[in-house]
Amino acid sequence: MLVSALLTSVGINSGLCVLFFTLYSILRKQPSNYDVYIPRLLVEGTSTRRSGFNLERLIPSPGWVRRAWKLSEEELLSSSGLDAVVFMRIITFCLKVFVVAGIIGVFVLLPVNCTGDQLEDVDLVDFSNNSLDVFTISNVSSGSKRLWVHFCAVYIVTVFVCSLLYYEYKYISSKRIAYFLSSKPQPHQFTILVRSIPVSAGSSISDSIDSFFTEYHPSTYLSHLVVRRTNKLRNLINDAKKYYKRIIRLQSNPTQHRYGCFNCFGLFRRNVDLVDHYEKKLEDIEENVRLEQSEVSLAGEEIHAAFVSFKSRYGAAIAFHLQQSINPTQWVTEQAPEPHDVYWPFFSSSFMRRWISKLVVVVACILLTILFLIPVVVVQGLTNLSQLEGWFPFLESLLTITFVSQVITGYLPSLILMLFLKTVPPVMELLSSIQGYVSNSGIERSACNKVLWFTIWNIFFATVFSGSVLYQVSIFLEPRNIPAKLAVSVPAQASFFIAYVVTSGWTSASSELFRLVPLVWSLIRKPCTKSVDDELEVPSIPYHRDIPRLLFFGLLGITYFFLAPLILPFLLVYFCFGYIIYRNQFINVYAPKYETAGKFWPIVHNSMIFSLILMHAIAVGIFTLKKLSVASTLIFPLAILTLLFNEYCRKRFLPVFTAYPAESLIKKDRADENDAAMAEFYDSLVTAYQDPAFMPIHFSSNSDSIHSPLISSAQV
Amino acid sequence: MLVSALLTSVGINSGLCVLFFTLYSILRKQPSNYDVYIPRLLVEGTSTRRSGFNLERLIPSPGWVRRAWKLSEEELLSSSGLDAVVFMRIITFCLKVFVVAGIIGVFVLLPVNCTGDQLEDVDLVDFSNNSLDVFTISNVSSGSKRLWVHFCAVYIVTVFVCSLLYYEYKYISSKRIAYFLSSKPQPHQFTILVRSIPVSAGSSISDSIDSFFTEYHPSTYLSHLVVRRTNKLRNLINDAKKYYKRIIRLQSNPTQHRYGCFNCFGLFRRNVDLVDHYEKKLEDIEENVRLEQSEVSLAGEEIHAAFVSFKSRYGAAIAFHLQQSINPTQWVTEQAPEPHDVYWPFFSSSFMRRWISKLVVVVACILLTILFLIPVVVVQGLTNLSQLEGWFPFLESLLTITFVSQVITGYLPSLILMLFLKTVPPVMELLSSIQGYVSNSGIERSACNKVLWFTIWNIFFATVFSGSVLYQVSIFLEPRNIPAKLAVSVPAQASFFIAYVVTSGWTSASSELFRLVPLVWSLIRKPCTKSVDDELEVPSIPYHRDIPRLLFFGLLGITYFFLAPLILPFLLVYFCFGYIIYRNQFINVYAPKYETAGKFWPIVHNSMIFSLILMHAIAVGIFTLKKLSVASTLIFPLAILTLLFNEYCRKRFLPVFTAYPAESLIKKDRADENDAAMAEFYDSLVTAYQDPAFMPIHFSSNSDSIHSPLISSAQV
Repeated sequence: MLVSALLTSVGINSGLCVLFFTLYSILRKQPSNYDVYIPRLLVEGTSTRRSGFNLERLIPSPGWVRRAWKLSEEELLSSSGLDAVVFMRIITFCLKVFVVAGIIGVFVLLPVNCTGDQLEDVDLVDFSNNSLDVFTISNVSSGSKRLWVHFCAVYIVTVFVCSLLYYEYKYISSKRIAYFLSSKPQPHQFTILVRSIPVSAGSSISDSIDSFFTEYHPSTYLSHLVVRRTNKLRNLINDAKKYYKRIIRLQSNPTQHRYGCFNCFGLFRRNVDLVDHYEKKLEDIEENVRLEQSEVSLAGEEIHAAFVSFKSRYGAAIAFHLQQSINPTQWVTEQAPEPHDVYWPFFSSSFMRRWISKLVVVVACILLTILFLIPVVVVQGLTNLSQLEGWFPFLESLLTITFVSQVITGYLPSLILMLFLKTVPPVMELLSSIQGYVSNSGIERSACNKVLWFTIWNIFFATVFSGSVLYQVSIFLEPRNIPAKLAVSVPAQASFFIAYVVTSGWTSASSELFRLVPLVWSLIRKPCTKSVDDELEVPSIPYHRDIPRLLFFGLLGITYFFLAPLILPFLLVYFCFGYIIYRNQFINVYAPKYETAGKFWPIVHNSMIFSLILMHAIAVGIFTLKKLSVASTLIFPLAILTLLFNEYCRKRFLPVFTAYPAESLIKKDRADENDAAMAEFYDSLVTAYQDPAFMPIHFSSNSDSIHSPLISSAQV
Repeated sequence: MLVSALLTSVGINSGLCVLFFTLYSILRKQPSNYDVYIPRLLVEGTSTRRSGFNLERLIPSPGWVRRAWKLSEEELLSSSGLDAVVFMRIITFCLKVFVVAGIIGVFVLLPVNCTGDQLEDVDLVDFSNNSLDVFTISNVSSGSKRLWVHFCAVYIVTVFVCSLLYYEYKYISSKRIAYFLSSKPQPHQFTILVRSIPVSAGSSISDSIDSFFTEYHPSTYLSHLVVRRTNKLRNLINDAKKYYKRIIRLQSNPTQHRYGCFNCFGLFRRNVDLVDHYEKKLEDIEENVRLEQSEVSLAGEEIHAAFVSFKSRYGAAIAFHLQQSINPTQWVTEQAPEPHDVYWPFFSSSFMRRWISKLVVVVACILLTILFLIPVVVVQGLTNLSQLEGWFPFLESLLTITFVSQVITGYLPSLILMLFLKTVPPVMELLSSIQGYVSNSGIERSACNKVLWFTIWNIFFATVFSGSVLYQVSIFLEPRNIPAKLAVSVPAQASFFIAYVVTSGWTSASSELFRLVPLVWSLIRKPCTKSVDDELEVPSIPYHRDIPRLLFFGLLGITYFFLAPLILPFLLVYFCFGYIIYRNQFINVYAPKYETAGKFWPIVHNSMIFSLILMHAIAVGIFTLKKLSVASTLIFPLAILTLLFNEYCRKRFLPVFTAYPAESLIKKDRADENDAAMAEFYDSLVTAYQDPAFMPIHFSSNSDSIHSPLISSAQV
């Protein structure tokens, strides 16, 4: 790629970023956009819609940047939970790493690369087409002593990243314990989920649970709730909600039809009839719901799974950690998620069925990966103009225009890739939900992992080894040749990934701030609905979309810092954007949906270790290719030490992220012992894991309490 | 290899077996050999040395075969423990598998192979050199429809082995639970080993343990014993024992010097002086021991590790399963071994040190494997006569003699290999003991695994891919080509492995019966020592030597059954020998040293699964080579299903082998609650894990009780 093409791309994207930032500064001050840009503040009541118009509203102001910058970690922790803190620490971690790597890269490696003469000697023709290559390691002569500078840089950065990873893991695990110790009693701390409950003939599941736990956990067992199959019921309730909303809308229209939306579809004149019609339907459904509820509670719709609550956290932990039954596939225990975090729809209980669905999901992931490669390969064709001209001869005249060709090579490929990638997180989330996780947080964590590896495979490796799937797979079936192949292919794609950081990275950050999709959606929807603030749903941050993206840029930075240090300034800009923008979004937009207390960090740690090892593999290949075999041999100990470091961290920190230690559990239990509020808490614990589908509903106008608190619980 | 060479080998080994069996039948009846052939019966007192001579003693009788045959599993369980039962079940398992595989192999596959015409067509010259190949799959024509018979055989045997594995795992895990439920209260059930105990400044380790466990396990904590560094003390005690034995020997000589051993070395006349001299030395040492004992108990010789006992098994299990401290590398808990099973010498406590020693052992194992390949490669040369003649031209005349060449190709290679292999188990045991296991059983289990993989790598793969280490490693670095390489190399070595079964297998079985080394050792030692029956040590079976051998023959049988079914009859003979011989040895020779309650079985299971997968890999390669690609594709699902089956077994059965479930623990605890003997047991529990080096010793004649019970405890 030419320097000019990169500059075009940087120019377009800088312009876009400035535009987005300015638009955001103005639009966020318009009351009609409050539900897009500050839904959280609206719901919390700390901000109200001001209707008065003043000039200030039309002038962009950077006040939000100052507020986001000033937010302290304690404030973030108390307002958005530990997960948000962990998320922000990913960004600060990357910032620290790339500041250090950037200083080394730009002030040491870049001059070394530029003053090399490999490319001048070899291929002047190709050089003019790839002027960016002069900044990469490709420009350093083979066998040159200058390569030891790169070697030292690899060592220094690896040591720096590892020590930073260690302190970060330590810090977050201590935060996790501190969070637990300072938390109020919460149902999920006292509860476990038991699956594959065996039932002897003639007794019910509930009896079976009662007799088992009173037998083996007499002093700590409190209560249980058997899970039931409620898919049908949930559908009915959703129907009821739909009709209820329609009625509300119709009823509010005659008095308040400011926008006359239904009018224009010719529905308004049948308004009264419709309300009656819907009310009748709603009543029917409610009757059905009640029937179904009693049916489900009576008949054999019980699943062999139950939430079992204990009198102490320690009691629950014991039941979770010890194998309960002689047959390990029965009475399978796991930690219960928070009550509102339970994912009810796919509640499979049988050991075998969960196992098989897991296998199916694995196969589906592989298939998805293979099918996804097709668009990626097409996109790769775009960076190669001559190939594109070969495919589409009619474009030849168009491609001769410099600007067009620069847009196509510098901007279009990343944009198309980005659009395709947008579909991946939801698909992976769907797959994870099929896999048998019982909580939304578990599904998101699993999806986060899937999206991360998918991204690494389909963006990094597919770009680097552009070619057929079989070719890619064949490379990994010959592990001995991986470093050599990487050494040839990875530097060749440096310019693509620099462009990718600029387009995909910068754009994603600024569109995250601008919230384009919600904004457009709100503009379309607003005329049709009455704006009721209490109907407003505060979104939660999709960790499975954003964490893999951050980690992938981290991987790019770590693998490319010594090959093409030019990528680092662009990455630093991206992470600086991310730092300000995500803090702003946590203040104004996102509210936490659940709290995993930092369970996302191990994913980050693993990804960083993988990046380091990949970097070492590339370094081995590069130094071999550059005929500096001593250096390539000396990289091996570094890779081994990195893996050992990872193993140590797994032993030292990971256990705290799967379960809390006995010490903390007992301390917490003791602190609660004399608390008068515990009796009340135990009462609430008994029904905490009630399936929301069983809550009584009162939608129809016959019942007096339309806005009873029960509705909101049914809407969870 | 020629059929005649194989027959020579079979002839020699059959002769040897008959010889060993006959000699055994006679020698075992000689009272002077009782301590070699029935040490267990002697010590248990069920058999005494009969001094009267009669003719019957000189006539071989097969009575021992009948007794060994008749031994029921319950008798074996009560006399030698569950480990012996598991060991015998390995043999019966292999017998069952190879009876079925043998019927298929000999009556279906062998005729198919023999009636093939591939070898007749292709290479008549080579054929005359390798007439055994006519019985192998190599003789079936490429692309022949007959290969589907082999394909079906692979499927049938895989399904049979898997179902047998399932039932065996199920049976042994139920046996394990039953064994636990019927066991008496034992110290190790109530105790855990705690390592990496943090100590705050100014307090002792003991205080630290007391305060921690009374704080967090107040209701179940009973007592603890801090482990101390006693290497110096142990050396002193060993010295004392040595002198004590010398004195005993000298004192008994004047009255009883039947063999006059010391006489002949001219020592007898200084007899009295020596006794005095030794007595003085012994007194000095005893003084030192007492000083050292008090010093060690007082000073900072404590290790940051302790045996912590609890009032219930469930209490100990809770402390074992739950992570105790916030820092997972502190208060590291593991199950305590039986008190007499503790391996005291290498008692490292620090988390990091144990981790590093583990790494060192891994490196050492790899080095050993590489160095070991040198003799193996030399041995391989022997099967190839022409190569040998090339190496050592002066042998040419000798090798032309048919018998010599047949002995060399048929017998010598296996014999040399076997002798080299004899050194492996002790070395691996040493490595495992360095690795930081705290019990002899743990060391043996780990050594068993090491020896098994060492054998598979160094015998199977080194033989198959005879060549340099680098060549072998390079094969495994290209996993795609493994099946093809296996398909070429494995059938080529069929004759070697048939010979290996006959020589190594049959000889090892009959020498196990004959106990050649102990016999020779006893013959040398006897003249020098007074034969005191109560000094006789009953040996324990070296599981880490015998289990890998059985499993390796299992691997050979499973991988070769469809390639060269001729191996199966020889294997069956081996396992029949093993069945009778090991049962006989369990009755007469070996006494259990410890009880792992079947923990060896998972090793067996894994090895069998590996054998199946290896067999599938070979089948894929063979069918590809024979141009039957449909069949080779259809093997893949079988391999995947086998791996899934293994995964299921891991989930279903393995947990029971690492720890007992809560259900059983609580049942056992309840049963003990009303037992009056428990108070006494708790008292004994407090000192159960006392380091034997701390027992008071009284060797010197000054003390009155030379044969006090304390001596025997000091000799543990």
